[in-house]
Amino acid sequence: MSKLVNDPWCLIESAWNPESVRASESLFSIGNGRFGQRANFEEHYSGDSHQGSYLAGIYYPDKTRVGWWKNGYPDYFAKVLNATNWISIDVHVNGERLDLHAAREVRHFSRLLDMRDGILKRTFEVELQNGAVIAVEAQRFCSMHRPETAVIRYAVTAISGSMEVELCPAIDGDVKNEDSNWDDAFWKTLSVESNSAGSAGVLNQTEKTAFESAAAMRTSVHKLHSGGADAISASSGTSSAHAGFCSFQVALENDETVVLEKFVGITTSLHHAHGQVLDAAKAVAASAFLATHAVLLDEQQKAWQSIWSRGDIVIDGDVSAQQAIRFNVFHLNQTYRGDDPRLNIGPKGFTGEKYGGASYWDTEAYCLPFFLAGHEAAVPKQLLLYRYHHLGRAIENAEKLGFSCGAALYPMVTMNGEECHNEWEITFEEIHRNGAMVYAIWNYINYTGDQTYMADHGFAVVLGVARFWAQRVQWSEPKQAYVILGVTGPNEYENNVNNNWYTNYLAAWCLHYAASTAEALMKNQPQEWDRLVNAYDVNAAGEIARWKTVSSAMFQPQLENTRVLLQQDGFMDKEQLQASDLPSSQRPINQHWSWDRILRSVFIKQADVLQGFYFFQDDFDQETLEENYAFYEPKTVHESSLSPCVHAILAAKLGRKDEAYVHYLRTARLDLDDYNKEVYQGLHITSMAGTWLSVVEGFGGFRVRDGIPEFKGVLPEAWRSLQFLVHFRGRQLEIRIEPAGTLVTLLHGDPLQVKVDGELRSLQPAA
Amino acid sequence: MSKLVNDPWCLIESAWNPESVRASESLFSIGNGRFGQRANFEEHYSGDSHQGSYLAGIYYPDKTRVGWWKNGYPDYFAKVLNATNWISIDVHVNGERLDLHAAREVRHFSRLLDMRDGILKRTFEVELQNGAVIAVEAQRFCSMHRPETAVIRYAVTAISGSMEVELCPAIDGDVKNEDSNWDDAFWKTLSVESNSAGSAGVLNQTEKTAFESAAAMRTSVHKLHSGGADAISASSGTSSAHAGFCSFQVALENDETVVLEKFVGITTSLHHAHGQVLDAAKAVAASAFLATHAVLLDEQQKAWQSIWSRGDIVIDGDVSAQQAIRFNVFHLNQTYRGDDPRLNIGPKGFTGEKYGGASYWDTEAYCLPFFLAGHEAAVPKQLLLYRYHHLGRAIENAEKLGFSCGAALYPMVTMNGEECHNEWEITFEEIHRNGAMVYAIWNYINYTGDQTYMADHGFAVVLGVARFWAQRVQWSEPKQAYVILGVTGPNEYENNVNNNWYTNYLAAWCLHYAASTAEALMKNQPQEWDRLVNAYDVNAAGEIARWKTVSSAMFQPQLENTRVLLQQDGFMDKEQLQASDLPSSQRPINQHWSWDRILRSVFIKQADVLQGFYFFQDDFDQETLEENYAFYEPKTVHESSLSPCVHAILAAKLGRKDEAYVHYLRTARLDLDDYNKEVYQGLHITSMAGTWLSVVEGFGGFRVRDGIPEFKGVLPEAWRSLQFLVHFRGRQLEIRIEPAGTLVTLLHGDPLQVKVDGELRSLQPAA
Repeated sequence: MSKLVNDPWCLIESAWNPESVRASESLFSIGNGRFGQRANFEEHYSGDSHQGSYLAGIYYPDKTRVGWWKNGYPDYFAKVLNATNWISIDVHVNGERLDLHAAREVRHFSRLLDMRDGILKRTFEVELQNGAVIAVEAQRFCSMHRPETAVIRYAVTAISGSMEVELCPAIDGDVKNEDSNWDDAFWKTLSVESNSAGSAGVLNQTEKTAFESAAAMRTSVHKLHSGGADAISASSGTSSAHAGFCSFQVALENDETVVLEKFVGITTSLHHAHGQVLDAAKAVAASAFLATHAVLLDEQQKAWQSIWSRGDIVIDGDVSAQQAIRFNVFHLNQTYRGDDPRLNIGPKGFTGEKYGGASYWDTEAYCLPFFLAGHEAAVPKQLLLYRYHHLGRAIENAEKLGFSCGAALYPMVTMNGEECHNEWEITFEEIHRNGAMVYAIWNYINYTGDQTYMADHGFAVVLGVARFWAQRVQWSEPKQAYVILGVTGPNEYENNVNNNWYTNYLAAWCLHYAASTAEALMKNQPQEWDRLVNAYDVNAAGEIARWKTVSSAMFQPQLENTRVLLQQDGFMDKEQLQASDLPSSQRPINQHWSWDRILRSVFIKQADVLQGFYFFQDDFDQETLEENYAFYEPKTVHESSLSPCVHAILAAKLGRKDEAYVHYLRTARLDLDDYNKEVYQGLHITSMAGTWLSVVEGFGGFRVRDGIPEFKGVLPEAWRSLQFLVHFRGRQLEIRIEPAGTLVTLLHGDPLQVKVDGELRSLQPAA
Repeated sequence: MSKLVNDPWCLIESAWNPESVRASESLFSIGNGRFGQRANFEEHYSGDSHQGSYLAGIYYPDKTRVGWWKNGYPDYFAKVLNATNWISIDVHVNGERLDLHAAREVRHFSRLLDMRDGILKRTFEVELQNGAVIAVEAQRFCSMHRPETAVIRYAVTAISGSMEVELCPAIDGDVKNEDSNWDDAFWKTLSVESNSAGSAGVLNQTEKTAFESAAAMRTSVHKLHSGGADAISASSGTSSAHAGFCSFQVALENDETVVLEKFVGITTSLHHAHGQVLDAAKAVAASAFLATHAVLLDEQQKAWQSIWSRGDIVIDGDVSAQQAIRFNVFHLNQTYRGDDPRLNIGPKGFTGEKYGGASYWDTEAYCLPFFLAGHEAAVPKQLLLYRYHHLGRAIENAEKLGFSCGAALYPMVTMNGEECHNEWEITFEEIHRNGAMVYAIWNYINYTGDQTYMADHGFAVVLGVARFWAQRVQWSEPKQAYVILGVTGPNEYENNVNNNWYTNYLAAWCLHYAASTAEALMKNQPQEWDRLVNAYDVNAAGEIARWKTVSSAMFQPQLENTRVLLQQDGFMDKEQLQASDLPSSQRPINQHWSWDRILRSVFIKQADVLQGFYFFQDDFDQETLEENYAFYEPKTVHESSLSPCVHAILAAKLGRKDEAYVHYLRTARLDLDDYNKEVYQGLHITSMAGTWLSVVEGFGGFRVRDGIPEFKGVLPEAWRSLQFLVHFRGRQLEIRIEPAGTLVTLLHGDPLQVKVDGELRSLQPAA
């Protein structure tokens, strides 16, 4: 991949690298939480590329492909759709189509993603096969302020003398998913429009799910010359079966420039009534057109200013780290805006197709804290409501696996609440995900203090999950304890194991939390409790008693004469190697070893026991954490992008500062430096939240206990200072960590108690 | 499915059952070990049907389809091919095409498989839409005497007055596999011939593997009438892109009959040089044609007579059981003739496509004894040589999984030695199959006394497998023993378990056998030993010592204070239910439960610990067998067709006569009564060998110890007597079990000692 330039605010590619087009397309993706667009070229490109435009919440149930079917597998895999291409601007110069892959020479190519303002810029000079030379300056953004608007400004300058230039902006609905299982068409085009005033629009509908999506454009073209600007009229508007496009023809003298502004409206039936989706897109485009490019640009800059003012992280002394952390914060904000409970965060966001754009437990375990600390409580609440609205489907999912009486099993992978994954060891057995749903509720309430959430929405989910665990355990005569057989823990390098400690502990915690929550509701909100009992047919005495019994008698494997909690039954039968024993030629092991070899080895993919120590930090003393960290970390190969962050946080907590920094480095520039040679598939959006956790909860030592934010700074040697912002219950806090210590300032909001480096302090608003 | 008529020698379907055409096509399949043919109709049939014609050893590497790829999976799945249709005879009556699906009425339909002679017969009367009524008598067989010849006799009689009849026999190479993964074409047609003398032929070649297969026909048509027979000449010979056919036109008066005899040659490049395969087929057809139908029929009857004279089983007092056991013996003989080490026994033989026609450990564990007892040693030896020739690929397979130094892992599923399966829990973990390869060598030598086999071929395989086990174990500190982690035992309702007792015991046995075999060769055949040491780079001292060490310190899980050997680590943590606790609505559990639920349940698919008790009967006393049988059988749901036979044998050994009979009944008529509603896919050929085992080793108590055949009869109450034949080292024994006892007669061969019901007897040849 091309080396990126270090810059605190921008991602910069400063040379033409045709071999890494796909990777750059991922890295320079832009979006606004409602839709996203890979950094494809506006003009035609015949080289290897992955054209990708994605709409939040619009999916297609692709027929499942398996080798060997198992009962309970989903028939369909809901996947995010590659949607109408709205960026296309075909360019002809003296009759030759502009195509960087076919041109005689590309010079001075530069691509720049300005993260401060959320704007993608591209400039280059190109010599065509016919000898004509032009300079191009393209700029585009997905408006954060207007979530259905995108804008492109595309300028062509003649630099080899006079020439005829034709610009054909288009809206093209003829797109496919590369990852279609059966080469099905996902879309059908319902209507196409275009006119000779520079407008066009396409209305597509998904097969099966019947989502409608529309894109419409308005364009304006000017020729700039020494004397000023002349408006150019379109010479035609043309519609094909799937695309609408316009043609602008202009004769340029040397050094003259033609500029096309393309104002795009992108709408879906999620936010507009069926039958009105295309009209809405046209209205959005028209409104943007009337607003003018300058105003839209200003709005965009202000919107991003506001985001950064809530969530910027400043690292002094390390530009590379500074760039990386901003890159992560930037993409998280581009992926999720938190104004719609039907949306969630896919592991690749809007940057690629792999993993189908669906939601995993990543959201609850890794992403939620980012949105808690960076936004009003309404934003993270949407993430919780997403699961609340899927409760019925989680109950159906559990029923497919033989559970009953309202037991709920949330899916491993989903768009709409239905399970979308079909590996039995994951789909059916990686059930710890169910506990993460409850942990997220606890986390949200602990952070926000939102006391109404539990009765309104939370308890229904807690109840369904508790019922699941209560049925999923079984009594072991030999162990005289409840056991959970046949699971896969967070460490997916073990499958179908018995008594995965993390799963057992989390399940016991869920049951305990369910019982205490139920008792609190019963006592404090008796009316609400009665409503819940009726709505969910709760057998209060019997169920609560069962939860307590199981919770208190859950088996927890432990290594004799130590504080080490064993990852699962039989763990010590394995050859007790360390990751450092592995020759580098065999790493990552998931690319070199067959699955059985990985499974019977001691090597750990990502935090498993230690994930429990991260979630339940207050349940274990420092010695126990130290002993378990020392036992497990050396066995961990960190082959999940979600692994290093948890280790960074725990290492920081243990005072292993250098180790924390090493772990942080593994996650921070994962995509920017393309460690795993897979960035061409898209970015690791959810692991970006892990990077943020490493900084804020790791180096910043941030957590909330009993309503009080606590900080404990640990500054990597390489940095002069670290500064980050935290939103907490209506206040804005600035935390600055310097070698001398940790300084917390209340930027605005009511006075507040915080704990800094172990000491309680009362903060007054800054002047 | 239609009810079959009970008959000791025939399978009879006596009514037209259009809804069960596929099932009957499987049941009435015929073959000769070289090729096989489902009981499809000769004439056109537009209803639901599965046209299937299969050639031994001809396969296509179909591109693997998986949901989630794992390192080490095979890229291609070799599958048996649906090959050129050689039975086709299109019939037109007064211009209307004969088609039982479209006819006005089908009457007096009967299908009969004469197992004594290996002939399939079908008769029916049909009224066409045009009112014409004809009677048809079709008869065909795959010649056992001439392994490349098949013959059809097809007679049409006018019974509604005079009519014009056209017969068009064809050879049609345009066939597809229903189970093609990617809808690939498996064949391309290289040439098609036909002529107006009633001959035609097609030469096909497989894509990728470039196997050639040809089928050619010669036909003769006669009109029979009160005055005699008139030869009818073909009016034309026509070739299309994939088919060659001829047309015979004849005018029939009422009661007159036209008879077509079709002599078919079926050849492949396995037995003929490339470029000569079609010529060979034509020569075979011509030779059959010249021989005449009567002679071919006589040969067929004699060939089957010879087979039955070696392997018939006679059950007196139970026609249904008599029919069933002959059906099983018949199909086993149709599937494998033992004259080619490149061939093996697919689970469905030549009766369907499912499981790709490939070989499993079924061959070594279940089928070998049938061929040992029913044939000269040369026949079962071919089954062993099949694996010997695949040793190199077994070593490659082990290398893919990280093994080295000549360790061999035989594939779970194969056509040519390469692994064809891609479920990690089976492909990578069901490694006990490797031990079955060695057990079969022991079994063969124990039975035949063939002392040359070990040095010539056996040791290479024993060595490769021993090297695998020696690497696959690991030392457990807590257990102070060698353990085998992450396996699937014969009970596939457990995956990725640790210390499956059967696997551990079998591995230890293999290592012990390898060590003692090596030492015996060293001592008794030092020259051969030196050759082997050089050929296979044996480190004699080091390797043998390692085998002994591991073998003697292998962990064997056992239930405390009992003789019960535990199926795997942690087995007692499961809820200890019995199969009788399951409501019938949930059975078979593999059709009602999700995989995780099956895995964490106690229920056992097929003999696992008890498979070890079957293989190693002499290693355990009767009390230990009784205790393990009593522990495991009630937990066993017998959802594999290979399960009841092992239980029948052990139950008989324990004197649980009624139970043995119940188990026998579950296997004997599995296909005939279509217990699992899946006979339409093909027959369970390898489980037929299990049925034979139930009778001969179960009720007959047959085994060979120290070169002496032993019998111990146990006669089911429902039977008056049971009589079977056994071939043993050049002798033919007849064993007759009556309520009064067991009688063994030496039919021919040298005098012999046998043990009958515990007593040693000297047998002299019968008069």
